[in-house]
Amino acid sequence: MIIKNYQQVNEEKVEMKGGSGATVRWLIDDKIGLSFAMRRYELKGSIPLHRHAYEHEVYFLEGQGEIIDADGNIRSISKGDFAYIPPNEAHGFKNNGKGENLVFLCLVPKQRGAIEFLE
Amino acid sequence: MIIKNYQQVNEEKVEMKGGSGATVRWLIDDKIGLSFAMRRYELKGSIPLHRHAYEHEVYFLEGQGEIIDADGNIRSISKGDFAYIPPNEAHGFKNNGKGENLVFLCLVPKQRGAIEFLE
Repeated sequence: MIIKNYQQVNEEKVEMKGGSGATVRWLIDDKIGLSFAMRRYELKGSIPLHRHAYEHEVYFLEGQGEIIDADGNIRSISKGDFAYIPPNEAHGFKNNGKGENLVFLCLVPKQRGAIEFLE
Repeated sequence: MIIKNYQQVNEEKVEMKGGSGATVRWLIDDKIGLSFAMRRYELKGSIPLHRHAYEHEVYFLEGQGEIIDADGNIRSISKGDFAYIPPNEAHGFKNNGKGENLVFLCLVPKQRGAIEFLE
């Protein structure tokens, strides 16, 4: 059994075209998790519209933000909201809080593939 | 894409031998999630020692509590802590906060089996 605080896990900068100010901690990574991984994101800016052949299960912990879909629809999200994003469905995240980071868990299956950015 | 608040999901009482005061919301259930499910628990009392052939990925959202293992070891947990509990490893949860619920996400793979209670 592994029990830790998220702060004990290394915080990595997320490198992506068109995105800004995102970090990720792989709390339960592919070496630990048997079939899926738990990541914790902190977003100052945005993660642009992208898609991939695996699903996301997302839970919002702190802050205020938006999810953008392939049709340009924008939905507000905040603490206590969650999202299921099926495989191949385009999505982006944006922080629109006042100085606060948008913080969320994003879980993914171990079997994944490439990410395609759409912007 | 599904986006909701946890309060929009039905809260069910958890029925178990020896446990007390637990409710669960299946935020992303087996009908929605392709390969794993997201549940949100609120615990006033405890979930006794038990084991099963699938893993848990747990993230603590609110409150103060303990995780108990098969050897009787007790580890304190609170907001921002997370746990990976491998298949077949016995575990229990206990709220020891002052009036507050112990609130956590507990994610499980879609392929599961029976639960064995050990107390």
